[in-house]
Amino acid sequence: MSTTITDARTCLAVVLAAGESTRMKSSMSKVLHPVAGRAMIAHVMEALAGAGIAAAALVVGRDAEAVAAAARRDDLAVTTHLQTERLGTGHAVLAARDAILTGYDDVIVVFGDTPLITAEPLKAARARLAAGDDVVVIGFHTARPTGYGRLIIENDTLLAIREEKDASEAERAITYCNGGLMAMNGARALEFLDAIGNANAKGEYYLTDAVEVARAAGARTIAIEAPETELMGCNNRAELAAIEAAWQARRRHALMVSGVSMIAPETVFLSYDTQLAQDVLVEPNVVFGPGVTVERDAVIHAFSHLEGAHVSAGATVGPYARLRPGAHLGENAKVGNFCEIKKAEIGEGAKVNHLTYIGDAFVGAGTNIGAGTITCNYDGVNKHVTRIGAQAFIGSNSSLVAPVTIGDGALVASGSVITDDVPADSAAFGRAWQTVKPGRAKLLRERYLAEKAAKSGKA
Amino acid sequence: MSTTITDARTCLAVVLAAGESTRMKSSMSKVLHPVAGRAMIAHVMEALAGAGIAAAALVVGRDAEAVAAAARRDDLAVTTHLQTERLGTGHAVLAARDAILTGYDDVIVVFGDTPLITAEPLKAARARLAAGDDVVVIGFHTARPTGYGRLIIENDTLLAIREEKDASEAERAITYCNGGLMAMNGARALEFLDAIGNANAKGEYYLTDAVEVARAAGARTIAIEAPETELMGCNNRAELAAIEAAWQARRRHALMVSGVSMIAPETVFLSYDTQLAQDVLVEPNVVFGPGVTVERDAVIHAFSHLEGAHVSAGATVGPYARLRPGAHLGENAKVGNFCEIKKAEIGEGAKVNHLTYIGDAFVGAGTNIGAGTITCNYDGVNKHVTRIGAQAFIGSNSSLVAPVTIGDGALVASGSVITDDVPADSAAFGRAWQTVKPGRAKLLRERYLAEKAAKSGKA
Amino acid sequence: MSTTITDARTCLAVVLAAGESTRMKSSMSKVLHPVAGRAMIAHVMEALAGAGIAAAALVVGRDAEAVAAAARRDDLAVTTHLQTERLGTGHAVLAARDAILTGYDDVIVVFGDTPLITAEPLKAARARLAAGDDVVVIGFHTARPTGYGRLIIENDTLLAIREEKDASEAERAITYCNGGLMAMNGARALEFLDAIGNANAKGEYYLTDAVEVARAAGARTIAIEAPETELMGCNNRAELAAIEAAWQARRRHALMVSGVSMIAPETVFLSYDTQLAQDVLVEPNVVFGPGVTVERDAVIHAFSHLEGAHVSAGATVGPYARLRPGAHLGENAKVGNFCEIKKAEIGEGAKVNHLTYIGDAFVGAGTNIGAGTITCNYDGVNKHVTRIGAQAFIGSNSSLVAPVTIGDGALVASGSVITDDVPADSAAFGRAWQTVKPGRAKLLRERYLAEKAAKSGKA
Repeated sequence: MSTTITDARTCLAVVLAAGESTRMKSSMSKVLHPVAGRAMIAHVMEALAGAGIAAAALVVGRDAEAVAAAARRDDLAVTTHLQTERLGTGHAVLAARDAILTGYDDVIVVFGDTPLITAEPLKAARARLAAGDDVVVIGFHTARPTGYGRLIIENDTLLAIREEKDASEAERAITYCNGGLMAMNGARALEFLDAIGNANAKGEYYLTDAVEVARAAGARTIAIEAPETELMGCNNRAELAAIEAAWQARRRHALMVSGVSMIAPETVFLSYDTQLAQDVLVEPNVVFGPGVTVERDAVIHAFSHLEGAHVSAGATVGPYARLRPGAHLGENAKVGNFCEIKKAEIGEGAKVNHLTYIGDAFVGAGTNIGAGTITCNYDGVNKHVTRIGAQAFIGSNSSLVAPVTIGDGALVASGSVITDDVPADSAAFGRAWQTVKPGRAKLLRERYLAEKAAKSGKA
Repeated sequence: MSTTITDARTCLAVVLAAGESTRMKSSMSKVLHPVAGRAMIAHVMEALAGAGIAAAALVVGRDAEAVAAAARRDDLAVTTHLQTERLGTGHAVLAARDAILTGYDDVIVVFGDTPLITAEPLKAARARLAAGDDVVVIGFHTARPTGYGRLIIENDTLLAIREEKDASEAERAITYCNGGLMAMNGARALEFLDAIGNANAKGEYYLTDAVEVARAAGARTIAIEAPETELMGCNNRAELAAIEAAWQARRRHALMVSGVSMIAPETVFLSYDTQLAQDVLVEPNVVFGPGVTVERDAVIHAFSHLEGAHVSAGATVGPYARLRPGAHLGENAKVGNFCEIKKAEIGEGAKVNHLTYIGDAFVGAGTNIGAGTITCNYDGVNKHVTRIGAQAFIGSNSSLVAPVTIGDGALVASGSVITDDVPADSAAFGRAWQTVKPGRAKLLRERYLAEKAAKSGKA
Repeated sequence: MSTTITDARTCLAVVLAAGESTRMKSSMSKVLHPVAGRAMIAHVMEALAGAGIAAAALVVGRDAEAVAAAARRDDLAVTTHLQTERLGTGHAVLAARDAILTGYDDVIVVFGDTPLITAEPLKAARARLAAGDDVVVIGFHTARPTGYGRLIIENDTLLAIREEKDASEAERAITYCNGGLMAMNGARALEFLDAIGNANAKGEYYLTDAVEVARAAGARTIAIEAPETELMGCNNRAELAAIEAAWQARRRHALMVSGVSMIAPETVFLSYDTQLAQDVLVEPNVVFGPGVTVERDAVIHAFSHLEGAHVSAGATVGPYARLRPGAHLGENAKVGNFCEIKKAEIGEGAKVNHLTYIGDAFVGAGTNIGAGTITCNYDGVNKHVTRIGAQAFIGSNSSLVAPVTIGDGALVASGSVITDDVPADSAAFGRAWQTVKPGRAKLLRERYLAEKAAKSGKA
């Protein structure tokens, strides 16, 4: 089916995100919990946009404002609808009655807590609506169907979604289950939704009943399949971790087949927007927070942590390097072990190899920053900038007290505290002369030991 | 069955912990190897205590004293019994004959190398004894029964434990297997144990024969089921690692459903006593050694290592932070990357953000410790204390030579060595004035390069 | 079968390593990608040597020189043969026609991209040739045969290798599959290879056809089995990661059963030559690069990274320690958190505990290196050596400017910059005296805050 046909149709997604999330045992709504570094709900919204859906009705309860904020996207018009009573999924969808009344070709119901959903099954469901079906349920095949509603199908028609407790033994053997998501002919959606009753044990309105209701009204009802993983829902934090794991596995695999090497992919943690180019090597135990781009042939060594950082081609990071937001490494630059870079540009081929903090700074091309160097960027009130030129040499254990500028080709002697600018090609010293007291170490040692002996004698 | 009934009965646990452990290839007894940060045997003893068992007879061999020490608990009376000959499990239990002779309602045999056992199956076995059964074998269902003794059951009666080699083809198909643990009517335990013979290929006394012996004596013999995981035994270090993995998976899951977020639970390593409150976030790659408590809303960033530490509500740890025993972080305190805190209190809202060592110290509320700060707490013989007041500012790369006190609101300039107390609101400097030699860097560079060229010319 | 018989026979291995590797999306040949720290092809060559094979004909294409270099071994005579056309595996083997013509008892075809192969199946195949078989195919049993050629066997004779697409339904049910490796009677190898035709859809020469060709010539053809893991091939970087994982799992298991403790083996990454002695403890998250030896009772704490390093008995490394090439730790030495050791000897019982860089240095027995110490070994052009004697004490935050020598029992005061030698038992100071400005901190704070207020007023 051509996407052109689908795109010509208008579609409203009703996003159910009003759950109480009690089993999450959390001080915030379930759909705000992050997966791959951003709120679950934002993943769902991205799938909607990817399926060419331009309008979404967000049904919210707890933390309504925060949920709406997390769901916001430039390419989606989102209205929010407060669910005040909790009378079942069928009832929840009707909280968006106003939005549905606006009139759309397609209405599709999705859940805020299934962040692994992609655009593909949504597009497939919309294609079925375009082809004349009235209700399309997205199902999945599973080896462990227990607990799920089973899809009762005959001649390609979905007859009903049978809940576990109502299923016959034969029906329980069915492994094709209800994934929860449902697309409906927009012209008839309210007709179906309003016809759902609550004559059941709990007195709730179940969206799943829309299938039988629609069939009774002579509508065409079918099911389409999506991978089980995409329909994983989240009810507690163990399930949240399982969702995160599935997301990570999917993304790692995609990056590897695109030419990124990972020695131990299961120990590399990506964010939703991590970009790694071909021939990048990522060693074990690397964490990518949001906002990281790594260019070709760069190496990210073990135990590195990157966030909001750009690593240019051929650059080397780690092991044990932390790049914080605003870190920008030039081509072939090196940031080594126990180094932290924050809001700083490290020039082409520059080296920051050991035990160093570079914050609010510019380091010129080819400059070498010695071990233990600290840019003292904070005076307790304000942050100040350190500028270091190209081809400079900063001796180990130096403190560069910002605001300060070190010129091109300048040298700072080891252990110096630099408070004033250093002109280009100059050498700066900020340290005391060495004095030696012969025999003094022996004396001190003997005295200390005597004191210690005296103390333990007293004790 | 009510626990009141069970608790009214007395119970002796015979703990077999005398194995030679040769396949562990270890310089210490197998049961001393740690799981989740404490000796395997200690886990078993905890399960006993949890099942309301107040007396244990520890059958020891190698490393007897260390094993007894590791098994010690305040809530269990433990006697130790040396096994001098190695003539089978039945014989091993009889090393505790004196203890059994004391007279207990229940006698239960457990193994020092099954540290995943919990109180539940032990309580269930005791309940069966209370209900009149004489021998209760704890079994498990498994998909891979090969090698295990099969439980031959008829009308709920355990007829025998059939060893693999003696089993018929039909019996080999049985997937309900002997878990090794056995509870016995205390009044008849010695009768059964003494009746076990050694007429077998190896000439050993097998505890499993107690079932047939008891049946021959008209006793009631049954089996109860425990999860396979709880019965995992340890014969080599690969199995030890598998046990550790199962322990970690169980504990992580329990913490997550209680409201702790773990992005990648499989990379978080807990100790037997790790306490994490609701809404704590643990990022990937965190190791908790023994003795850690983390309060609500605290965040433990990636690559952190905590041991014997307390993290108060809202505090932030890491990435790459190491909290050692005696570290105490106040509310909303921050300890950041490449920082080590040992035996030190970090006050409410205080910040220790980068490349710092704080040992034997007190840091007041709201104080900021600059990057690269070191408390010099050791003079080669003794450790001394550093006291830093509230709202103080310690400049980067400073050395605080203990014993020393920095007052409230005091400032230490970057790069200073502080050997004397700094009064409140004072500024202290301990660094040389900067001098600059114009052109000197260029000169040095040229000289170095000339020397290098000369050297390589000679080579 | 005795290995003596096998060893008496000569054997040529034809190693196919000419693949284009397009699916690797890589700037280098697939067989150069590392597994466990060395090129895939090197693993294959090691298996050959282990099977007593002394001659190998390497069929190369892309990156021919680099591949040949990576395949080089002292115990194997390797000739390289350029494959210029890509006409199938049968044709590829014939690129080594000259080598085969030399005359060998056995010819065995292996693949450069199956680095998990061990000597065992190769030895077994050679033993079959010695026993009179003419073509020996190495197969594997698998639960997922789809896509593999099935081995059609009757009365122990291998009748054919049936490709998936040509297989009947009954043949598709076969789970014994072609692993690709094939051993041939050296006297008839060319006869078989030359008889392979290309009358198939792609017009290629398939090595697998050698079986039917040989049978037609009255030769004896059989299959022998190898573990599925050993035959894992690599077509993209996800498969490369899967191979790495299998290699790591195999090696970790071997080390654990030999007496090495790993708390979380799945987080320990080994290199091809990592040597860990009995009773070594490796905590979670440790990376061993090439060239590491760790002796008995040493402890490698979490988050450590070792490469080209030797750790003597009883020494302690980490957490967060990085040992780089040339690091040599004496017995009971300690290197602690956030420390980097490069090309340096740390004497018996010496301690380098925190935030330190020791490079190009000797540290004597029992010496204590304070937190934050840096050996300033680089002047921007050359590297220089630091020598520290035994029982010395280097105060925290010191900078030792090499070349420099600190004598036995000497003391360097905290925060010193040491540029000149320090004699034995002397104390050296290289720091400024402390000055205190009462009230100054308060003043500065007020001024800063006023400035800040002024700025934000303007903004």
